[in-house]
Amino acid sequence: MNKGLKIVLSGPSGSGKGTIVKELIKDEQFLLSISATTRSTRQGEEEGVHYFFKTREEFEGMIAQNELLEYAEFCGNYYGTPKAFIENSVKNGKDVILEIEVEGAMQIKKIYPDAVFIFVVPPSLTELENRLVGRNTEAREVIEQRLARAKEELALYTQYDYVVVNDRLVEAIDEIKCIVRAEKLKSSFYGQKIENVIQN
Amino acid sequence: MNKGLKIVLSGPSGSGKGTIVKELIKDEQFLLSISATTRSTRQGEEEGVHYFFKTREEFEGMIAQNELLEYAEFCGNYYGTPKAFIENSVKNGKDVILEIEVEGAMQIKKIYPDAVFIFVVPPSLTELENRLVGRNTEAREVIEQRLARAKEELALYTQYDYVVVNDRLVEAIDEIKCIVRAEKLKSSFYGQKIENVIQN
Repeated sequence: MNKGLKIVLSGPSGSGKGTIVKELIKDEQFLLSISATTRSTRQGEEEGVHYFFKTREEFEGMIAQNELLEYAEFCGNYYGTPKAFIENSVKNGKDVILEIEVEGAMQIKKIYPDAVFIFVVPPSLTELENRLVGRNTEAREVIEQRLARAKEELALYTQYDYVVVNDRLVEAIDEIKCIVRAEKLKSSFYGQKIENVIQN
Repeated sequence: MNKGLKIVLSGPSGSGKGTIVKELIKDEQFLLSISATTRSTRQGEEEGVHYFFKTREEFEGMIAQNELLEYAEFCGNYYGTPKAFIENSVKNGKDVILEIEVEGAMQIKKIYPDAVFIFVVPPSLTELENRLVGRNTEAREVIEQRLARAKEELALYTQYDYVVVNDRLVEAIDEIKCIVRAEKLKSSFYGQKIENVIQN
Protein backbone atom coordinates (compact mmCIF):
# COMPACT_ATOMS: atom_id res chain seq x y z
CA MET A 1 0.00 0.00 0.00
CA ASN A 2 1.47 3.36 -1.01
CA LYS A 3 0.79 6.11 1.46
CA GLY A 4 -1.32 9.10 0.50
CA LEU A 5 -0.68 12.80 0.70
CA LYS A 6 -1.75 15.52 3.09
CA ILE A 7 -3.06 18.34 0.94
CA VAL A 8 -3.62 21.77 2.41
CA LEU A 9 -5.97 23.74 0.19
CA SER A 10 -6.16 27.37 1.08
CA GLY A 11 -6.85 30.74 -0.49
CA PRO A 12 -8.58 34.05 0.02
CA SER A 13 -12.30 34.13 0.73
CA GLY A 14 -14.07 34.03 -2.64
CA SER A 15 -11.30 32.08 -4.38
CA GLY A 16 -13.73 29.17 -4.75
CA LYS A 17 -11.71 26.63 -2.76
CA GLY A 18 -14.87 25.22 -1.16
CA THR A 19 -16.37 24.39 -4.56
CA ILE A 20 -13.11 22.80 -5.67
CA VAL A 21 -13.01 20.57 -2.58
CA LYS A 22 -16.63 19.44 -3.14
CA GLU A 23 -15.69 18.35 -6.65
CA LEU A 24 -12.40 16.69 -5.66
CA ILE A 25 -13.95 14.45 -3.01
CA LYS A 26 -16.29 12.95 -5.60
CA ASP A 27 -13.15 11.01 -6.50
CA GLU A 28 -12.66 8.35 -3.83
CA GLN A 29 -8.92 8.87 -3.89
CA PHE A 30 -9.58 12.01 -1.84
CA LEU A 31 -10.91 12.37 1.68
CA LEU A 32 -11.83 15.58 3.41
CA SER A 33 -10.39 16.00 6.88
CA ILE A 34 -13.17 15.70 9.49
CA SER A 35 -13.35 18.13 12.38
CA ALA A 36 -14.15 17.37 16.00
CA THR A 37 -16.68 19.57 17.81
CA THR A 38 -18.48 19.87 21.13
CA ARG A 39 -21.61 21.36 19.59
CA SER A 40 -24.69 19.16 19.43
CA THR A 41 -25.56 17.08 16.39
CA ARG A 42 -27.91 18.72 13.89
CA GLN A 43 -30.47 16.85 11.85
CA GLY A 44 -28.87 14.73 9.17
CA GLU A 45 -25.37 14.95 10.62
CA GLU A 46 -23.53 11.70 11.20
CA GLU A 47 -20.70 10.89 13.58
CA GLY A 48 -17.44 10.42 11.67
CA VAL A 49 -18.95 11.76 8.45
CA HIS A 50 -19.73 15.41 9.14
CA TYR A 51 -18.00 15.71 12.50
CA PHE A 52 -16.57 13.73 15.36
CA PHE A 53 -18.95 14.73 18.15
CA LYS A 54 -17.25 15.05 21.53
CA THR A 55 -18.18 16.10 25.04
CA ARG A 56 -16.33 19.09 26.47
CA GLU A 57 -14.32 16.74 28.66
CA GLU A 58 -13.34 14.52 25.76
CA PHE A 59 -12.36 17.54 23.67
CA GLU A 60 -10.24 19.02 26.43
CA GLY A 61 -8.62 15.62 26.82
CA MET A 62 -7.69 15.73 23.12
CA ILE A 63 -6.19 19.19 23.61
CA ALA A 64 -4.19 17.98 26.60
CA GLN A 65 -2.94 14.91 24.69
CA ASN A 66 -1.89 17.07 21.72
CA GLU A 67 -4.24 15.13 19.47
CA LEU A 68 -5.44 18.19 17.55
CA LEU A 69 -3.73 19.89 14.66
CA GLU A 70 -5.44 23.13 15.59
CA TYR A 71 -8.57 24.13 17.50
CA ALA A 72 -10.64 27.17 18.36
CA GLU A 73 -13.60 28.03 20.56
CA PHE A 74 -16.52 29.64 18.77
CA CYS A 75 -19.88 30.60 20.31
CA GLY A 76 -19.15 28.49 23.35
CA ASN A 77 -18.23 25.34 21.41
CA TYR A 78 -14.90 23.83 20.52
CA TYR A 79 -13.96 23.03 16.93
CA GLY A 80 -10.72 21.29 16.02
CA THR A 81 -8.88 19.06 13.56
CA PRO A 82 -7.93 15.61 14.93
CA LYS A 83 -4.52 14.42 13.75
CA ALA A 84 -5.40 10.72 14.06
CA PHE A 85 -8.00 10.74 11.28
CA ILE A 86 -5.61 12.51 8.90
CA GLU A 87 -2.65 10.29 9.68
CA ASN A 88 -4.59 7.00 9.54
CA SER A 89 -6.20 7.96 6.24
CA VAL A 90 -2.83 8.84 4.70
CA LYS A 91 -1.43 5.53 5.96
CA ASN A 92 -4.31 3.81 4.18
CA GLY A 93 -3.35 5.44 0.89
CA LYS A 94 -5.95 8.22 0.83
CA ASP A 95 -5.10 11.78 -0.10
CA VAL A 96 -6.51 13.87 2.71
CA ILE A 97 -7.61 17.42 1.97
CA LEU A 98 -7.46 20.08 4.64
CA GLU A 99 -9.47 23.12 3.55
CA ILE A 100 -8.19 25.94 5.68
CA GLU A 101 -8.06 29.73 5.84
CA VAL A 102 -4.72 31.32 4.98
CA GLU A 103 -3.81 32.04 8.60
CA GLY A 104 -4.46 28.46 9.68
CA ALA A 105 -2.52 27.03 6.74
CA MET A 106 0.65 28.74 7.87
CA GLN A 107 0.30 27.12 11.30
CA ILE A 108 -0.15 23.66 9.82
CA LYS A 109 3.07 24.04 7.89
CA LYS A 110 4.93 23.86 11.19
CA ILE A 111 3.29 20.56 12.18
CA TYR A 112 3.09 18.90 8.74
CA PRO A 113 6.05 20.21 6.73
CA ASP A 114 5.56 17.24 4.36
CA ALA A 115 2.04 18.34 3.39
CA VAL A 116 1.46 19.75 -0.09
CA PHE A 117 0.38 23.37 0.18
CA ILE A 118 -1.85 24.59 -2.64
CA PHE A 119 -2.95 28.21 -2.88
CA VAL A 120 -6.19 28.77 -4.78
CA VAL A 121 -6.50 32.29 -6.15
CA PRO A 122 -9.13 34.12 -8.18
CA PRO A 123 -8.12 35.14 -11.72
CA SER A 124 -8.06 38.81 -10.69
CA LEU A 125 -9.15 41.09 -7.86
CA THR A 126 -11.82 42.49 -10.18
CA GLU A 127 -13.24 39.01 -10.65
CA LEU A 128 -13.05 38.37 -6.89
CA GLU A 129 -15.03 41.57 -6.32
CA ASN A 130 -17.64 40.44 -8.85
CA ARG A 131 -17.98 37.10 -7.09
CA LEU A 132 -18.34 38.69 -3.65
CA VAL A 133 -20.90 41.18 -4.99
CA GLY A 134 -22.69 38.34 -6.81
CA ARG A 135 -23.21 36.43 -3.57
CA ASN A 136 -25.39 39.39 -2.59
CA THR A 137 -25.04 38.52 1.08
CA GLU A 138 -22.64 41.17 2.29
CA ALA A 139 -22.65 44.93 2.73
CA ARG A 140 -20.35 46.98 0.51
CA GLU A 141 -18.15 47.73 3.51
CA VAL A 142 -17.63 44.04 4.26
CA ILE A 143 -16.76 43.38 0.61
CA GLU A 144 -14.16 46.15 0.71
CA GLN A 145 -12.64 44.57 3.82
CA ARG A 146 -12.54 41.15 2.18
CA LEU A 147 -10.86 42.58 -0.91
CA ALA A 148 -8.24 44.35 1.16
CA ARG A 149 -7.61 41.14 3.07
CA ALA A 150 -7.44 39.08 -0.13
CA LYS A 151 -4.80 41.45 -1.46
CA GLU A 152 -2.74 40.95 1.70
CA GLU A 153 -3.19 37.19 1.57
CA LEU A 154 -2.22 36.96 -2.11
CA ALA A 155 1.18 38.37 -1.21
CA LEU A 156 1.74 35.22 0.88
CA TYR A 157 1.78 32.96 -2.19
CA THR A 158 5.49 32.18 -1.79
CA GLN A 159 4.61 30.29 1.41
CA TYR A 160 2.77 27.69 -0.67
CA ASP A 161 4.17 24.99 -2.91
CA TYR A 162 1.72 25.58 -5.75
CA VAL A 163 -0.61 28.28 -7.00
CA VAL A 164 -3.79 27.36 -8.87
CA VAL A 165 -5.80 30.12 -10.55
CA ASN A 166 -9.46 29.25 -10.24
CA ASP A 167 -10.69 30.72 -13.50
CA ARG A 168 -12.48 27.70 -14.96
CA LEU A 169 -13.44 25.15 -12.27
CA VAL A 170 -12.78 22.08 -14.44
CA GLU A 171 -9.28 23.25 -15.26
CA ALA A 172 -8.48 24.13 -11.65
CA ILE A 173 -9.52 20.64 -10.54
CA ASP A 174 -7.50 19.09 -13.32
CA GLU A 175 -4.47 21.08 -12.24
CA ILE A 176 -4.81 19.98 -8.63
CA LYS A 177 -5.10 16.33 -9.66
CA CYS A 178 -2.00 16.78 -11.78
CA ILE A 179 -0.13 18.28 -8.84
CA VAL A 180 -1.11 15.30 -6.67
CA ARG A 181 0.03 12.86 -9.35
CA ALA A 182 3.35 14.65 -9.84
CA GLU A 183 3.96 14.82 -6.09
CA LYS A 184 3.69 11.04 -5.96
CA LEU A 185 6.31 10.76 -8.70
CA LYS A 186 8.82 12.75 -6.66
CA SER A 187 11.96 10.80 -5.87
CA SER A 188 11.54 11.71 -2.20
CA PHE A 189 8.24 9.81 -2.27
CA TYR A 190 9.81 6.89 -4.03
CA GLY A 191 12.04 4.78 -1.78
CA GLN A 192 9.96 1.62 -1.71
CA LYS A 193 9.13 1.66 -5.41
CA ILE A 194 12.75 1.89 -6.55
CA GLU A 195 13.57 -1.02 -4.24
CA ASN A 196 10.94 -3.01 -6.14
CA VAL A 197 12.66 -2.20 -9.44
CA ILE A 198 16.07 -3.23 -8.12
CA GLN A 199 14.87 -6.42 -6.42
CA ASN A 200 12.78 -7.71 -9.32
CA MET B 1 5.29 35.16 -22.58
CA ASN B 2 5.86 32.67 -19.76
CA LYS B 3 9.25 31.05 -19.81
CA GLY B 4 9.63 27.34 -20.40
CA LEU B 5 11.40 24.65 -18.43
CA LYS B 6 14.70 22.89 -18.83
CA ILE B 7 13.94 19.18 -18.52
CA VAL B 8 16.73 16.69 -18.01
CA LEU B 9 15.54 13.23 -18.95
CA SER B 10 17.90 10.50 -17.91
CA GLY B 11 17.93 6.86 -16.96
CA PRO B 12 19.77 3.59 -17.36
CA SER B 13 20.40 2.22 -20.83
CA GLY B 14 17.30 0.27 -21.83
CA SER B 15 14.92 2.38 -19.74
CA GLY B 16 13.31 3.58 -22.95
CA LYS B 17 14.03 7.28 -22.48
CA GLY B 18 14.82 7.70 -26.19
CA THR B 19 11.38 6.45 -27.21
CA ILE B 20 9.74 8.71 -24.65
CA VAL B 21 11.59 11.75 -26.00
CA LYS B 22 10.55 10.94 -29.58
CA GLU B 23 6.92 10.88 -28.48
CA LEU B 24 7.15 14.01 -26.33
CA ILE B 25 8.57 16.22 -29.08
CA LYS B 26 5.56 15.46 -31.28
CA ASP B 27 3.95 18.05 -28.99
CA GLU B 28 5.24 21.46 -30.10
CA GLN B 29 5.46 22.61 -26.49
CA PHE B 30 8.64 20.53 -26.29
CA LEU B 31 11.97 21.03 -28.04
CA LEU B 32 14.90 18.65 -27.99
CA SER B 33 18.24 20.26 -27.21
CA ILE B 34 20.42 20.32 -30.34
CA SER B 35 24.08 19.36 -30.14
CA ALA B 36 27.03 21.02 -31.85
CA THR B 37 29.58 18.84 -33.64
CA THR B 38 32.68 19.09 -35.80
CA ARG B 39 31.89 15.95 -37.76
CA SER B 40 30.78 16.37 -41.35
CA THR B 41 27.13 16.54 -42.33
CA ARG B 42 25.55 13.24 -43.37
CA GLN B 43 22.88 12.90 -46.01
CA GLY B 44 19.57 14.29 -44.85
CA GLU B 45 21.01 16.16 -41.88
CA GLU B 46 20.15 19.83 -41.57
CA GLU B 47 21.99 22.61 -39.79
CA GLY B 48 20.10 23.66 -36.66
CA VAL B 49 17.75 20.67 -36.88
CA HIS B 50 19.91 17.61 -36.34
CA TYR B 51 23.11 19.39 -35.29
CA PHE B 52 24.84 22.73 -35.30
CA PHE B 53 27.79 21.97 -37.62
CA LYS B 54 30.99 23.71 -36.61
CA THR B 55 34.60 23.82 -37.72
CA ARG B 56 37.19 22.72 -35.19
CA GLU B 57 38.18 26.33 -34.69
CA GLU B 58 34.62 27.45 -34.09
CA PHE B 59 34.04 24.59 -31.65
CA GLU B 60 37.20 25.36 -29.70
CA GLY B 61 36.09 28.97 -29.61
CA MET B 62 32.83 27.86 -28.01
CA ILE B 63 34.75 25.85 -25.43
CA ALA B 64 36.97 28.86 -24.67
CA GLN B 65 33.94 31.16 -24.33
CA ASN B 66 32.19 28.71 -21.97
CA GLU B 67 29.30 28.43 -24.42
CA LEU B 68 28.86 24.67 -23.96
CA LEU B 69 27.01 22.89 -21.21
CA GLU B 70 29.23 19.85 -21.69
CA TYR B 71 31.35 18.44 -24.51
CA ALA B 72 33.42 15.40 -25.37
CA GLU B 73 35.74 14.29 -28.15
CA PHE B 74 34.80 11.02 -29.83
CA CYS B 75 36.56 9.38 -32.80
CA GLY B 76 38.39 12.60 -33.55
CA ASN B 77 35.28 14.82 -33.55
CA TYR B 78 33.87 17.15 -30.93
CA TYR B 79 30.29 16.83 -29.70
CA GLY B 80 28.76 19.28 -27.25
CA THR B 81 25.60 20.94 -25.96
CA PRO B 82 25.36 24.69 -26.68
CA LYS B 83 23.83 26.66 -23.84
CA ALA B 84 22.50 29.45 -26.09
CA PHE B 85 19.97 27.24 -27.90
CA ILE B 86 18.60 25.92 -24.59
CA GLU B 87 18.41 29.31 -22.92
CA ASN B 88 16.85 31.10 -25.89
CA SER B 89 14.25 28.38 -26.34
CA VAL B 90 13.29 28.51 -22.67
CA LYS B 91 13.02 32.30 -22.89
CA ASN B 92 10.65 31.81 -25.83
CA GLY B 93 8.40 29.63 -23.68
CA LYS B 94 9.47 26.22 -24.97
CA ASP B 95 10.17 23.30 -22.66
CA VAL B 96 13.59 22.05 -23.68
CA ILE B 97 14.43 18.40 -23.19
CA LEU B 98 17.97 17.28 -22.56
CA GLU B 99 18.26 13.52 -23.01
CA ILE B 100 21.41 12.56 -21.18
CA GLU B 101 23.18 9.57 -19.65
CA VAL B 102 23.13 9.38 -15.86
CA GLU B 103 26.71 10.56 -15.47
CA GLY B 104 26.17 13.64 -17.64
CA ALA B 105 22.93 14.50 -15.85
CA MET B 106 24.71 14.90 -12.55
CA GLN B 107 27.11 17.39 -14.16
CA ILE B 108 24.28 19.46 -15.59
CA LYS B 109 22.75 19.80 -12.16
CA LYS B 110 25.68 22.00 -11.18
CA ILE B 111 25.13 24.38 -14.11
CA TYR B 112 21.32 24.33 -14.26
CA PRO B 113 20.11 23.74 -10.70
CA ASP B 114 16.70 25.08 -11.81
CA ALA B 115 16.24 22.30 -14.38
CA VAL B 116 13.69 19.56 -13.70
CA PHE B 117 15.47 16.23 -13.35
CA ILE B 118 13.41 13.22 -14.36
CA PHE B 119 14.73 9.68 -13.93
CA VAL B 120 13.20 7.11 -16.28
CA VAL B 121 13.45 3.57 -14.95
CA PRO B 122 12.37 0.16 -16.25
CA PRO B 123 9.63 -1.61 -14.24
CA SER B 124 12.15 -4.18 -13.00
CA LEU B 125 15.66 -5.44 -13.67
CA THR B 126 14.15 -8.62 -15.11
CA GLU B 127 12.20 -6.53 -17.62
CA LEU B 128 15.33 -4.51 -18.42
CA GLU B 129 17.20 -7.75 -19.11
CA ASN B 130 14.39 -8.90 -21.40
CA ARG B 131 14.57 -5.64 -23.32
CA LEU B 132 18.33 -5.78 -23.71
CA VAL B 133 18.18 -9.43 -24.83
CA GLY B 134 15.28 -8.57 -27.16
CA ARG B 135 17.38 -5.98 -28.98
CA ASN B 136 19.50 -8.94 -30.01
CA THR B 137 22.47 -6.71 -30.75
CA GLU B 138 24.73 -7.39 -27.82
CA ALA B 139 26.73 -10.29 -26.46
CA ARG B 140 25.64 -11.85 -23.17
CA GLU B 141 28.68 -10.36 -21.48
CA VAL B 142 27.78 -6.83 -22.56
CA ILE B 143 24.23 -7.33 -21.33
CA GLU B 144 25.53 -8.42 -17.92
CA GLN B 145 27.67 -5.29 -17.77
CA ARG B 146 24.72 -3.09 -18.67
CA LEU B 147 22.57 -4.72 -16.00
CA ALA B 148 25.23 -4.26 -13.35
CA ARG B 149 25.58 -0.63 -14.38
CA ALA B 150 21.79 -0.09 -14.39
CA LYS B 151 21.66 -1.42 -10.83
CA GLU B 152 24.32 1.10 -9.77
CA GLU B 153 22.58 3.91 -11.60
CA LEU B 154 19.17 3.11 -10.10
CA ALA B 155 20.62 3.76 -6.66
CA LEU B 156 21.17 7.39 -7.74
CA TYR B 157 17.44 8.06 -7.97
CA THR B 158 17.52 10.44 -4.99
CA GLN B 159 19.58 12.84 -7.13
CA TYR B 160 16.57 13.38 -9.38
CA ASP B 161 13.41 15.35 -8.71
CA TYR B 162 11.07 12.74 -10.15
CA VAL B 163 11.06 9.03 -10.99
CA VAL B 164 8.93 7.72 -13.85
CA VAL B 165 8.57 3.97 -14.28
CA ASN B 166 8.43 3.23 -18.00
CA ASP B 167 6.10 0.27 -17.93
CA ARG B 168 3.46 1.41 -20.40
CA LEU B 169 4.78 4.11 -22.76
CA VAL B 170 1.51 6.10 -22.92
CA GLU B 171 1.32 6.31 -19.16
CA ALA B 172 4.98 7.32 -18.78
CA ILE B 173 4.48 10.16 -21.27
CA ASP B 174 1.32 11.23 -19.51
CA GLU B 175 3.18 11.30 -16.21
CA ILE B 176 5.98 13.42 -17.64
CA LYS B 177 3.48 15.91 -19.10
CA CYS B 178 1.80 16.05 -15.71
CA ILE B 179 5.13 16.74 -14.00
CA VAL B 180 5.81 19.59 -16.44
CA ARG B 181 2.35 21.05 -15.84
CA ALA B 182 2.72 20.82 -12.05
CA GLU B 183 6.19 22.38 -12.17
CA LYS B 184 4.69 25.42 -13.87
CA LEU B 185 2.11 25.71 -11.09
CA LYS B 186 4.84 25.94 -8.45
CA SER B 187 4.76 29.18 -6.52
CA SER B 188 8.47 29.65 -7.25
CA PHE B 189 7.55 29.75 -10.95
CA TYR B 190 4.74 32.15 -10.30
CA GLY B 191 5.91 35.70 -9.56
CA GLN B 192 4.58 37.43 -12.66
CA LYS B 193 1.26 35.62 -12.67
CA ILE B 194 0.37 36.54 -9.09
CA GLU B 195 1.23 40.15 -9.89
CA ASN B 196 -1.36 39.95 -12.66
CA VAL B 197 -3.97 38.76 -10.16
CA ILE B 198 -3.18 41.56 -7.73
CA GLN B 199 -3.02 44.30 -10.38
CA ASN B 200 -6.23 43.38 -12.20
